[in-house]
Amino acid sequence: MKKRVAVLRGDGIGKEVTDAAISVLEAIGRRFHHEFEWVYGLLGGEAIDTVGQPLPDETIRICEESDAIILGAVGGPKWDNHPSHLRPEKGLLQIRKHFELSVNLRPVQAFKSLLSVSPLKEEVAEGVDMMIVRELTGGLYFGEPSFHDNDKAVDTLVYGRDEIERVVIHAFELAKQRRNKVTSVDKANVLESSKLWRKIVEEVAARYPEVEYEHMLVDAAAMKLITYPSAFDVLVTENMFGDILSDEASVITGSLGMLPSASLRADGFGLYEPIHGSAPDIAGKNIANPIGAILSTAMMLRSSFGMLEEANALETAVKNVLEAGFCTSEFKNIGRQILSTTEMTEKIIGEIER
Amino acid sequence: MKKRVAVLRGDGIGKEVTDAAISVLEAIGRRFHHEFEWVYGLLGGEAIDTVGQPLPDETIRICEESDAIILGAVGGPKWDNHPSHLRPEKGLLQIRKHFELSVNLRPVQAFKSLLSVSPLKEEVAEGVDMMIVRELTGGLYFGEPSFHDNDKAVDTLVYGRDEIERVVIHAFELAKQRRNKVTSVDKANVLESSKLWRKIVEEVAARYPEVEYEHMLVDAAAMKLITYPSAFDVLVTENMFGDILSDEASVITGSLGMLPSASLRADGFGLYEPIHGSAPDIAGKNIANPIGAILSTAMMLRSSFGMLEEANALETAVKNVLEAGFCTSEFKNIGRQILSTTEMTEKIIGEIER
Ligand SMILES: CC(C)[C@H](C(=O)O)[C@@H](O)C(=O)O
Ligand SMILES: CC(C)[C@H](C(=O)O)[C@@H](O)C(=O)O
Repeated sequence: MKKRVAVLRGDGIGKEVTDAAISVLEAIGRRFHHEFEWVYGLLGGEAIDTVGQPLPDETIRICEESDAIILGAVGGPKWDNHPSHLRPEKGLLQIRKHFELSVNLRPVQAFKSLLSVSPLKEEVAEGVDMMIVRELTGGLYFGEPSFHDNDKAVDTLVYGRDEIERVVIHAFELAKQRRNKVTSVDKANVLESSKLWRKIVEEVAARYPEVEYEHMLVDAAAMKLITYPSAFDVLVTENMFGDILSDEASVITGSLGMLPSASLRADGFGLYEPIHGSAPDIAGKNIANPIGAILSTAMMLRSSFGMLEEANALETAVKNVLEAGFCTSEFKNIGRQILSTTEMTEKIIGEIER
Repeated sequence: MKKRVAVLRGDGIGKEVTDAAISVLEAIGRRFHHEFEWVYGLLGGEAIDTVGQPLPDETIRICEESDAIILGAVGGPKWDNHPSHLRPEKGLLQIRKHFELSVNLRPVQAFKSLLSVSPLKEEVAEGVDMMIVRELTGGLYFGEPSFHDNDKAVDTLVYGRDEIERVVIHAFELAKQRRNKVTSVDKANVLESSKLWRKIVEEVAARYPEVEYEHMLVDAAAMKLITYPSAFDVLVTENMFGDILSDEASVITGSLGMLPSASLRADGFGLYEPIHGSAPDIAGKNIANPIGAILSTAMMLRSSFGMLEEANALETAVKNVLEAGFCTSEFKNIGRQILSTTEMTEKIIGEIER
């Protein structure tokens, strides 16, 4: 197959990890006889500096003409005091909205060989394998009115039935391919939006009798993610709860730099990015962990291109390298061999080529 | 001194732990020559069953005529499917609003002798000693419009300058009595309300040059509470972020049943309750941990009655009992002696009377 991929390397370590992911995809292409065409676009801080917009029109055009988007990371202290329409994060919000990337998937998996670096006790973090499904283009981040002056501020949390339905259905479909369990998180004891959310979950659940489901309040979920994280299979929630809970969940296994994400449109088009940030402090040093970016492209192969075997081969390669005792610099002092970004990438490519 | 205290035992284990707290306060009264008058009122599920309202007028009157309020816990599955105006939690929201209890304090402290039950590695949980300051009567829980029908839902996050200012000032004042550090949590890269919040924090901080402060995004805070919780001293945030983060923080030390809270009005009047829920599954069995309720009354002695020595005596008594190796039933299999609710209460009273 021939696929065209928009590459938005972004800022900081976003560049290095995206380069790593591309090399790995080239290896997948060679092994499975696919051809990838890379089309580069600007996003975030660099885009602001270069063309004065966090999401330039040219970047939108490039993405529209591609089969999928891969993204590194955006942001950095340099742009922190810009007005909001000139901040890197704005580019991220705009691209999600423009391409209707309403379903955000964040798998969190414990790598057994790295449990010693988890902040949780090993027996608590062991066996964690959940998929967080976050609604990404609605809710408090996008509702109007939204303004502030010197004395008052308003944000608005709006959800329409369609927006809730599509992400909830996605969660139940995923659960069928996993362990058949959905935890829907809301604050239905207080919020009106959560009451509609819960109602729709009930309706959707009735169409999936084989999937077990439960409702959980967001505060209770914030606790259970720490006390008993392996109890979760698919966790589905609205935009802001998802923002908070998915970041909370990302640190429980100690493998933050390894975690991928996908942001999907209804037709399967998607944007794929590691969940870590642009980490300006370590940018350009060839020490960043490329695995989050690399595993994000595995999600792309599977979800946007239907290349299941290829995705599995890539994930297996990563797993083998980790199990062979290699890791990147954030895992120091645990008796493993530390590789640079490019060395780790080469090792993974070596596994794919074996 | 003579003090009149409104006692809202609520539902489930709320009753038992409140009774325990009252016995302990009686002991404090004997030792320090204070007289407490207890006036009982209904709140939550029992109030719904008895008079058809979660917060009866009679209860409001009792609280208005008292110097402080102590509360057990409200709620239970029995009322979970009631319409929202007839749910126990509504009583809680109403009492907060009625008495303008806008500043919620939740100290989270690691008890060294119980670190083995924390879900976090002992070296991560060790030394945790933070005060979470949550705005309690504004934001998304109270803003209008707020409604849902079958197709659409809206909630509104509103904050006025005054509401933000008073809780932020409270946080800086507390920091002065602690380790001089404030972490203000917001989502200023997206929300308008967070931008006003951040602006006001800057203004207030300028009046406290001796207090170090930082801004942290809510998603980053959700991570750091797990990866490096001992870094926090005073954490201040708006209502919903505070709801989620304070519950998250409450489990990191493994001592959920031990944690107290205070909800304060500007003049020092307050409501004091353990942070745990009504736990209907263990209610009436005399096995609940009364320490959260007991330590809440220490906060009352200190914040509402200015009885500093008394509060310290009470806290020391609890600490001594824990260090002597006693605990309640949730800490089984860690080689400590398990006491019932009433036995634990007697032990603490014994310490106070020594
Ligand atoms: C940068 C920010 C707008 C974004 C969000 O909150 O959605 C980020 O935190 C994320 O989770 O992708
Ligand atoms: C019961 C509920 C309304 C309440 C809240 O969210 O404020 C509770 O979770 C709390 O934190 O006190």
